[in-house]
Amino acid sequence: MRLSRYFLPVLKENPSEAQVASHRLMLRAGMIKQQAAGIYSWLPLGWRVLRNVERIVHEEQQRAGHLPVLMPTIQPGELWQESGRDNSYGPEMLRITDRQGRKMLYGPTNEEMITDIFRAHASSYKELPLTLYHIQWKFRDEIRPRFGVMRGREFLMKDGYTFDLTREDAMIAYDRHMVAYLRTYERMGLTAIPMRADSGPIGGDDTHEFLVLAETGESEVMYDSAVTDLRLGDRRVDYDDAAQLRAICEEWTRPYARTDETHDVATFERQVPEARRRLSRGIEVGQIFYFGTKYSEPMGATVQGPDGKPVPVHMGSHGIGVSRLVGAIIEASHDDKGIVWPEGVTPFHCGIVNLRAGDGACDAAAAALEEGLAALGLEALHDDRDERAGTKFATMDLIGLPWRITVGPRGIKGGVVELTSRRTGESEELPPAEALAKVAAAYGVRAVVEG
Amino acid sequence: MRLSRYFLPVLKENPSEAQVASHRLMLRAGMIKQQAAGIYSWLPLGWRVLRNVERIVHEEQQRAGHLPVLMPTIQPGELWQESGRDNSYGPEMLRITDRQGRKMLYGPTNEEMITDIFRAHASSYKELPLTLYHIQWKFRDEIRPRFGVMRGREFLMKDGYTFDLTREDAMIAYDRHMVAYLRTYERMGLTAIPMRADSGPIGGDDTHEFLVLAETGESEVMYDSAVTDLRLGDRRVDYDDAAQLRAICEEWTRPYARTDETHDVATFERQVPEARRRLSRGIEVGQIFYFGTKYSEPMGATVQGPDGKPVPVHMGSHGIGVSRLVGAIIEASHDDKGIVWPEGVTPFHCGIVNLRAGDGACDAAAAALEEGLAALGLEALHDDRDERAGTKFATMDLIGLPWRITVGPRGIKGGVVELTSRRTGESEELPPAEALAKVAAAYGVRAVVEG
Repeated sequence: MRLSRYFLPVLKENPSEAQVASHRLMLRAGMIKQQAAGIYSWLPLGWRVLRNVERIVHEEQQRAGHLPVLMPTIQPGELWQESGRDNSYGPEMLRITDRQGRKMLYGPTNEEMITDIFRAHASSYKELPLTLYHIQWKFRDEIRPRFGVMRGREFLMKDGYTFDLTREDAMIAYDRHMVAYLRTYERMGLTAIPMRADSGPIGGDDTHEFLVLAETGESEVMYDSAVTDLRLGDRRVDYDDAAQLRAICEEWTRPYARTDETHDVATFERQVPEARRRLSRGIEVGQIFYFGTKYSEPMGATVQGPDGKPVPVHMGSHGIGVSRLVGAIIEASHDDKGIVWPEGVTPFHCGIVNLRAGDGACDAAAAALEEGLAALGLEALHDDRDERAGTKFATMDLIGLPWRITVGPRGIKGGVVELTSRRTGESEELPPAEALAKVAAAYGVRAVVEG
Repeated sequence: MRLSRYFLPVLKENPSEAQVASHRLMLRAGMIKQQAAGIYSWLPLGWRVLRNVERIVHEEQQRAGHLPVLMPTIQPGELWQESGRDNSYGPEMLRITDRQGRKMLYGPTNEEMITDIFRAHASSYKELPLTLYHIQWKFRDEIRPRFGVMRGREFLMKDGYTFDLTREDAMIAYDRHMVAYLRTYERMGLTAIPMRADSGPIGGDDTHEFLVLAETGESEVMYDSAVTDLRLGDRRVDYDDAAQLRAICEEWTRPYARTDETHDVATFERQVPEARRRLSRGIEVGQIFYFGTKYSEPMGATVQGPDGKPVPVHMGSHGIGVSRLVGAIIEASHDDKGIVWPEGVTPFHCGIVNLRAGDGACDAAAAALEEGLAALGLEALHDDRDERAGTKFATMDLIGLPWRITVGPRGIKGGVVELTSRRTGESEELPPAEALAKVAAAYGVRAVVEG
């Protein structure tokens, strides 16, 4: 993509309304524009990151055997009367009356609707286990929306719902979600720690939140540093193997990790050696929750069990904040020059800076690099504008592409370009084909270096 | 995908509420579930088709150089006061009051918001031409929603907006959209005819609708049959070549094609030889529209022109009904057994019917076919259920996958399977590897046939 043809409205000044780094950087990098309190448009650069996050969530959900659906944003009020939540949900629910005078609402979550889908179509225990999920816009009318997309009113969420015959089966689905979530966050370059959460009146060990460590997090977190060393890496996960899933969940939940809501000082000090005790802040980026028959009973979502008798299904709901993750990733990965995208979600794989746009040799070299990357399935943002070098570097640093190739007249005469890592700031001079191969290797793509 | 693990709630009976084939078939094939009048959930099979349609729209838009963004569904009322449409839009607009008492609305379209984005960020004619588009849910509170997703209240639309310095430039953007749309529909297996539409008070030759021929269409259409013979096929389109774009647009708009709104009998009879005169019905699946400075003037969306003076930009809006297209494709492609998906949008590339699930040789052959297709990047829906052959065939015919491979004990003993085309109904017996290669070829994938 040529920057001269792109729409990247970067801001030079720090926007005064932004209190946290991610909000400030998303506005400065031209990723979003506020349209109303807590309601944002995603501009081209922001759209790309949002789309990457969404794609990773889809891929990891489907790898775990979960089935994508898409429920509408607008729901009929009746469903929420059936579950009893119509009264209890409060003013965060955006209530709407349509032209026929019917009570509707903008879905803040979808337990009722998915239960309605299930009861309409499923009838036998043989159809279980079943997990349906969707990635759809939600609305919660927060009284004080803030931190940009981290606490917006209209936000994109993945919410998945599990249906099982028994509590035991539902807990396998719970484990499956935990493992799928760990993989999801890891692919986004995040260390997200599962923490036992407060499950409210239902109680028990059946809800975990996933928290990304960041100074601006809304929750205080206390944890054993051993948990942040864990990686799934290339491990082969068989999502049909309940024992393997359990073992992974135990590996991640054995080390102490709690938010202030559930923190227990005595356990913390007994379990965790002093050198490994950590106190930090965290951003919640997901939650898994087993809630049993809370919706299936009042709404009549039953299946015929093996003995022919109707059984209300055991359910769970499992959410990932998709738009929120874009902010959380930035909170976890930025410096004073701008964003530092992890390779998994970067809007472009590589930046190309042509220091002398209009110079035949530089133009040709920069274009060849862009095409060479494209041939490997990698997308470049190619700054072909007639701007000062300082402006171009500042823009690239701000938008945070992991790799930058700089093409200048002196280098090209000597047959080299400069490859720079955004994360380390280190640069090296290399022939173009080698620079290209190094970038490709960073994305796990093999490039044949000619000559 | 194993059907035993899928969620495909097919209906045996014809749903009484459905008046048109697409609505009936989408309900029967377990693609959608109605949640309220004109509001649908997309179940797994429907989600796949919707996603394919969306992907093709994205690919063709980006190929034309248009930039994806994503605007929110909820908009502030103020924007519509600026444009003056707040009063004129009428009761189809879903108006909402938030908890702070602010007037909001669920966007039925996005001219105001995109103009707001443009004026906030663009300042010079050097940033033009620019096309920003998004694919987002819209809401229009139709008084009588009907025909399933064809005339829903909540629907998915691609709407793109062009910004140019002059009318002439805007008409190049108009042509670019027409060509991109022709490619889009063609990839979906549709013959969509651009027809001059009634542009209302603005007038002129500056809006076209795209209509798919179908008996159930809402519009009467009169056309020269020559237009339905046109194909872009493998033509290389250079979207920067205004002359080439114009030539393609002329090729498609020269033959007479009008809806009843703009039909002119005298011209029709003068221009079209009698043998080529056609009278049919059509479904509108898109519209392109040049509207000049209608929004840029009242909303102050100006750029500095080459002479330094502010110029209101010339704009156009260009829409494709993404969710509606799923219905339109079915209207154009079905028979009395069910849907017949075009290869471009089919939810799975191939069905595999195992006639004797539980038989070792049949199970192994069916599994090997599924894996063989997957290795080529093709997805199969593999009916591994313990059901009668008639049920399995009826389901496959209903859901309309273009290709079906049937694995039976007798065939397997003889080293063959049966390959069936959904469109022609023709079957042939082939060794599994050859069946696989034929399916691959239909999708333009080359398979190496062993042995």
